[in-house]
Amino acid sequence: MSHYDDSALPRAFRDALTQALGNKVSFALGAREQAAQEVTHHKPHLPDAVVFAHEHDDVQITAELCNQHRVPIVARAQGSSLEGHIAALKGGVSLDMNAMNAILEVNQSDLDCRVQAGVTRKQLNEHLRDTGLFFPIDPGADASIGGMTATRASGTNAVRYGTMRENVLGLTAIMADGSLLRCGTRARKSAAGYDLTRLLVGSEGTLGLITEIQLRLYGIPEAMSAAICAFETIEGAVEAVQLIMQMGIPVARVEFLDAMQIKAVNAYSKTSYAEEPHLFFEFHGTNTGVEEQAAMVGEICNDFGGKGFQWAKDAETRNKLWRARHDAYWASLALRPGCKGLATDICVPISRLSESLLATRKATTELGLVATMAGHVGDGNYHLLILLDENKPEEWEAAAKLNQRMVEQAIDLGGTCTGEHGVGYGKKKYLLKEMPTALPVMASIKRALDPNNILNPGKIFDLD
Amino acid sequence: MSHYDDSALPRAFRDALTQALGNKVSFALGAREQAAQEVTHHKPHLPDAVVFAHEHDDVQITAELCNQHRVPIVARAQGSSLEGHIAALKGGVSLDMNAMNAILEVNQSDLDCRVQAGVTRKQLNEHLRDTGLFFPIDPGADASIGGMTATRASGTNAVRYGTMRENVLGLTAIMADGSLLRCGTRARKSAAGYDLTRLLVGSEGTLGLITEIQLRLYGIPEAMSAAICAFETIEGAVEAVQLIMQMGIPVARVEFLDAMQIKAVNAYSKTSYAEEPHLFFEFHGTNTGVEEQAAMVGEICNDFGGKGFQWAKDAETRNKLWRARHDAYWASLALRPGCKGLATDICVPISRLSESLLATRKATTELGLVATMAGHVGDGNYHLLILLDENKPEEWEAAAKLNQRMVEQAIDLGGTCTGEHGVGYGKKKYLLKEMPTALPVMASIKRALDPNNILNPGKIFDLD
Repeated sequence: MSHYDDSALPRAFRDALTQALGNKVSFALGAREQAAQEVTHHKPHLPDAVVFAHEHDDVQITAELCNQHRVPIVARAQGSSLEGHIAALKGGVSLDMNAMNAILEVNQSDLDCRVQAGVTRKQLNEHLRDTGLFFPIDPGADASIGGMTATRASGTNAVRYGTMRENVLGLTAIMADGSLLRCGTRARKSAAGYDLTRLLVGSEGTLGLITEIQLRLYGIPEAMSAAICAFETIEGAVEAVQLIMQMGIPVARVEFLDAMQIKAVNAYSKTSYAEEPHLFFEFHGTNTGVEEQAAMVGEICNDFGGKGFQWAKDAETRNKLWRARHDAYWASLALRPGCKGLATDICVPISRLSESLLATRKATTELGLVATMAGHVGDGNYHLLILLDENKPEEWEAAAKLNQRMVEQAIDLGGTCTGEHGVGYGKKKYLLKEMPTALPVMASIKRALDPNNILNPGKIFDLD
Repeated sequence: MSHYDDSALPRAFRDALTQALGNKVSFALGAREQAAQEVTHHKPHLPDAVVFAHEHDDVQITAELCNQHRVPIVARAQGSSLEGHIAALKGGVSLDMNAMNAILEVNQSDLDCRVQAGVTRKQLNEHLRDTGLFFPIDPGADASIGGMTATRASGTNAVRYGTMRENVLGLTAIMADGSLLRCGTRARKSAAGYDLTRLLVGSEGTLGLITEIQLRLYGIPEAMSAAICAFETIEGAVEAVQLIMQMGIPVARVEFLDAMQIKAVNAYSKTSYAEEPHLFFEFHGTNTGVEEQAAMVGEICNDFGGKGFQWAKDAETRNKLWRARHDAYWASLALRPGCKGLATDICVPISRLSESLLATRKATTELGLVATMAGHVGDGNYHLLILLDENKPEEWEAAAKLNQRMVEQAIDLGGTCTGEHGVGYGKKKYLLKEMPTALPVMASIKRALDPNNILNPGKIFDLD
């Protein structure tokens, strides 16, 4: 067929794939362009083909053929990853998991469920609506559970409920040679051999193609309430958070927004918060528990220069608050119409958070950049979103310099180059700086499990 | 030297080791026998030499020489593991980590610390005494942190604080070729590459020799209280626990003891609990929180046939209760003086726990065995301790059959062959049954990281 002609793929491979998967395969430019679409500043890289997986066998067949013909596979679903994870750097097949979106099992009495990789987190919570259960991990975007597992996602609720690391009980994956891996069980804990589940979580599609995930769920708490507090200084806000964490107050969410972020939110979400650093809180528990938490947190905030701690028990105020927080990304972009955003993502020990935030703010000013800051500060994790003019390369250079400074300082402070976005190809050099002795071990594992380097090649690290 | 003469070790290796480590090496029978000592029914296997590591370099030198000469290394400290983990199945060097017992760093404001592998959990908590912090993981024995990390230990507090999986932030290990691995950071979360920390946690000394561990710590709660409740039936007790977990009541401990276990405890610890199934609880939180938890739990217990739920706020009653629980192992052995104990360890989804416990109790009776049951039932994990006469092989055969039935049923119920004891060499065949597709992947990783199979060979799985 004519659309084969200029393909980089071996003819025998294309024929075998088409024969096995029929119209689930496309070599059309339109499909390939769509498969490369990115929400971030990372340059799209076109795959040579797209496979729309509908069932387990489709994934298995694709892996077997790709392995046989040494063709790369890049799995994707929503494409909301932030470090170029889905870029087909070396061409090959984009494996679209969106149609594998069945919720296979919900065990109400064990608070767990099993889903296919293409199920999104909102779809899952919608499905759970009448069960009294919910899945807490919330990375902002309506990401797929498969993608969240592959990138070890977290977000606003991680301070209370953990990240994907803590919430994946087990999974099914197709390995590079097409073989099946099932690891983990429905038991809450296990000491049965190597923790392959945790190895696959965060492996960014480089070790196996995750097809099904067994997840922990939680009962919807009896009471949920929110609070907001403005601070005179960044230090004040961070010191308050530090004490809250030290005291073990089980806040469900504690989000920091700097003055610039608040300004953006006000303009975008029609709110009228004071243009100062803010903390947004959410509390989960019993009615008494939630009241007690709010009272303790309110007192701590006041002690650190918090102004007018406001506690909201009603769902409407709470939803408005979190909508504003979730729209912070779009609000920031709207600060500078037509710009692109470069999202940084570091995580440091909480005692060093203030130092990190202040250095970042100072460097932003020095470099003459416009940027907003927001973060999951209970975990010591925050993002600077740098707003850049596409036509001004000098801004992009300055932003890269700023990102580098942030990461290097974070590593020096005992932290990590990525709290939740992952490495992709955007942060490979930083991972090397962060864990120089770990890279050779990661590479050995990669070579052992994917000797032909077909699974998302060029991500996390380079193999020689 | 004469004590070399009948050694299985190559002469060149022995000389090099002695030259490098001097009197930190022993080839004496006494030292080798001590290094093989086991608390369980597993047969001791003598190493050919013992290295007493005092510092990091000692471990590195040992690994390099062992790798060069293809000599096995089995790391050990307290020797409290339960599935033959420290048995030198293929001889070689026993690497004694007890002298590496320095607490290197405590970061009060970040609630973390860094310790050498030989530090024991009690030593750590003693050291933390005046800081207001504590390390919660409590496997019963005063195990070393290194051993607990290597076996993914947990225990009574795991229902609230997680296992070693959740509480190791990072670690340092010497790999099979003597190279150094540092993975993880002090950040609370990270998406930076493969989770090597989690891969080493639970690897039972087969992938690397853990020398230092970065741990999470917790603030000592404002209030701690305990409660105890007897139940008419096992089902009643388990159903109460199931509802407590479903409601998300954050109990710090919830332990089940069956009537036989209570009988043993009464005799050993001079208590006078009714000889019926019991739940022991601990609550951590604020004063109000702890009162609220106890009230809710008390009500639930009453609803499921609990009799006389007793809540104790004072430290003395609480300590007495937990001493009795911790002595349950010794109390059980005392039920049948001179006997040995075979400890089983399964973990199932909580909705299947009742079914599992009842089947186990029934099988115990059918097989004419004497055994006590106790478990960390909030996690669905429990142990049957079977009391056996060393001179009656028919009892041992029956016990092996019972263990096998328990494990096979647990796997069928969606659970695991080991909740916390690990695989060692005692449970290899069950791991194969539990995760047949995972074994080849584990073996690939093992071959990649330890190509000469020198690290604790014969544990977890067999290589071909």
